[in-house]
Amino acid sequence: MLELEEKDPANQSTTPGRIFKIIRDSGPLYANDIVRRSGLAKSTVSAYVDKLLSVGLLREDIPEGGKRRKLKVAESAGYVVGIALGQSHLDVALCDLEAETIDSRCCPVSLLRESPEEVLGKAVAFARELEESAGLGPQALFGVGIGLPSPVDYANGVPVNPPVMPGWDRYPVASFLAQEFTCPVFVDNDVNVMALAERDKGAATGIVGRRGSFILVKAGTGIGAGLVIDGEIYRGAKGAAGDIGHIGIDGDETLCPCGNRGCLEAVAGGRALLARAEAAAGSGRSPFLAAELAAGSPIAPALVAKGAASGDEECIRLVISSGASIGDILAKLVNFFNPSLIVVSGGLTGLGERFIASIRESIYRRSTPLAAADLVVKKSALPGGGGTTGAAILVLDEVFSHRNVGRLMRGLA
Amino acid sequence: MLELEEKDPANQSTTPGRIFKIIRDSGPLYANDIVRRSGLAKSTVSAYVDKLLSVGLLREDIPEGGKRRKLKVAESAGYVVGIALGQSHLDVALCDLEAETIDSRCCPVSLLRESPEEVLGKAVAFARELEESAGLGPQALFGVGIGLPSPVDYANGVPVNPPVMPGWDRYPVASFLAQEFTCPVFVDNDVNVMALAERDKGAATGIVGRRGSFILVKAGTGIGAGLVIDGEIYRGAKGAAGDIGHIGIDGDETLCPCGNRGCLEAVAGGRALLARAEAAAGSGRSPFLAAELAAGSPIAPALVAKGAASGDEECIRLVISSGASIGDILAKLVNFFNPSLIVVSGGLTGLGERFIASIRESIYRRSTPLAAADLVVKKSALPGGGGTTGAAILVLDEVFSHRNVGRLMRGLA
Repeated sequence: MLELEEKDPANQSTTPGRIFKIIRDSGPLYANDIVRRSGLAKSTVSAYVDKLLSVGLLREDIPEGGKRRKLKVAESAGYVVGIALGQSHLDVALCDLEAETIDSRCCPVSLLRESPEEVLGKAVAFARELEESAGLGPQALFGVGIGLPSPVDYANGVPVNPPVMPGWDRYPVASFLAQEFTCPVFVDNDVNVMALAERDKGAATGIVGRRGSFILVKAGTGIGAGLVIDGEIYRGAKGAAGDIGHIGIDGDETLCPCGNRGCLEAVAGGRALLARAEAAAGSGRSPFLAAELAAGSPIAPALVAKGAASGDEECIRLVISSGASIGDILAKLVNFFNPSLIVVSGGLTGLGERFIASIRESIYRRSTPLAAADLVVKKSALPGGGGTTGAAILVLDEVFSHRNVGRLMRGLA
Repeated sequence: MLELEEKDPANQSTTPGRIFKIIRDSGPLYANDIVRRSGLAKSTVSAYVDKLLSVGLLREDIPEGGKRRKLKVAESAGYVVGIALGQSHLDVALCDLEAETIDSRCCPVSLLRESPEEVLGKAVAFARELEESAGLGPQALFGVGIGLPSPVDYANGVPVNPPVMPGWDRYPVASFLAQEFTCPVFVDNDVNVMALAERDKGAATGIVGRRGSFILVKAGTGIGAGLVIDGEIYRGAKGAAGDIGHIGIDGDETLCPCGNRGCLEAVAGGRALLARAEAAAGSGRSPFLAAELAAGSPIAPALVAKGAASGDEECIRLVISSGASIGDILAKLVNFFNPSLIVVSGGLTGLGERFIASIRESIYRRSTPLAAADLVVKKSALPGGGGTTGAAILVLDEVFSHRNVGRLMRGLA
């Protein structure tokens, strides 16, 4: 049936992967659409589709009133676990093979005080709980993905030089989880993982598409970026690409915990913003924040946004200056990279639309007209920035890579 | 013979291209090496190699004392013309199918005073002269490539928003040349083209290889960058990627001809350097430059380098400050892009090794340790920055693309 098998083993192993990817990216599709998009012969497509149906990775989808079958990923043929770890919170989701969340758990953690074993142990316990409550056995688990708030050596699945995570430098996260789960484990930087969620389920879908290029900026306590180039995460030579939080603002002398001065994160990150907001409340420069603080409200981005909306001038100034600092750095990167989309995510988006507008304005003001032509700057609409969804997509991209689908198919046959 | 032809027309059309590319990138190769590198069946490789030999795109290469044939590109089976246009000079080279220069011509031009027709007319005349003197007929011309000192809409072959080239904005460069040559014409930004030369014949070959990623920085009158990602030029959404000359230095108020203040090019480009050198000569702050100017020497980067080498403190300061401004911007881009190689090219490299060292030092000082780990910063060793060679490679990459080799083969058969 698979006529290429004998003649061309390399081709045999990537062709089902190519077909499966087309269906993952654009399904449900008629077989004819797959022939057209792949450029493969009808007989080849038909043979592999049958095989993928028989092993259960694809399913038929007959549109209402339609006669011919469409083909789509059999989303319930297995599941993956997506883990998003932040400085102060842990999120774990059980997802289907289309990265849709079946169920999830979360809890606070402290990477400063808890050891990697403690934190990862909590993630494992959550995953077991989710498996159990969904009535799933471990044999259907296709893989586990985790996003860490640190640069990551992707090939080895270890964090490298994490800024404020004692005990995590080169901790074997992938091996630890692989021992617990006996399935493939993938570890990446949290912002890269969030970028994958934007690519497949978020802002990029309608603008650049799954094979497009864009920048995801996470502006929270830390500031970082994920680069997607032609649909793939670009990690750079040492997995450090996108580390924009430590780009220096020329002439700024603010001390950063990294030891340098004027780092974007130290000037415009969440900690700096909240410190300035507290100072403005304390000094009475912001009557709104002073009143809220007196009433016991915790100072947070959303509160500053509320103050700005109510006309408090100091709150407005705080929102605009934070956005402007980020936008000034992004303007430089726009000249260099000429993206057509920048998605802004993270806790500071709680500062509201005025914050995004301030970023946008600074970019347009200080990048070349050609580089900023048609550039869209928009806020992420994914809940929680899509951390767990992105971690699930990370796994799915790997287990459903061109080369792996053939293997998977032979394993399931 | 070509057993896949009937069954799988799409595969049939890209397979010879894949084989040819492996030989272009790594030849001379034994047939066995091609089988191993391509993952294709031996019979498939053998059939296509025979076909490529018979139409004359490959040739055999029997190593001295060797018995088995190796395969390589038949470099003399045709030729391409590479054109490098600068603000003040025009270079035209006739190259073989491995982008080696057979012969070349150059002359001064002025993009400020001459029309596109005049300048391109000179390029056409040079190309004809080269063809004639090499005794080649137009039927063997595979294509023409040109690098322009302007952002370029690559798909349409037109310059877009060129800074100081009156009459060139959206001028149909590709159509103009295609009419003269009746062969494919490719137009790109000069820095992108120079990056291709570094990839195949320059600094990248020993460091990141033909499928690697790096940044080429051209520091001359203008300052620009070319990005190569996984062996391919990354052009960005509007073809403006790499336009680093107009990245702003925060707080610098130097007026740039573009209308903005503090652009890198206005602060550290060739014009700024020479103006400062002249001022230093005029004021006597640089005794070396004052003496040279009095003796009638024109102020140029090499002269400033000579002054620095002789210990003239003002010359040393000029060299170091120009490198530091460029390095400060590159440090930001290193954090963002995490490259393993930056190649520095252009007229300012005449400032000597101290200039490169100053760039290097600024990058290391102000990027994160992880992003700069293993980063190599080195000077281009290609004569003239490889402009005409890169333009020839631009053509060869296109005419020998996966899809085109099959077509070419059928055309020659």
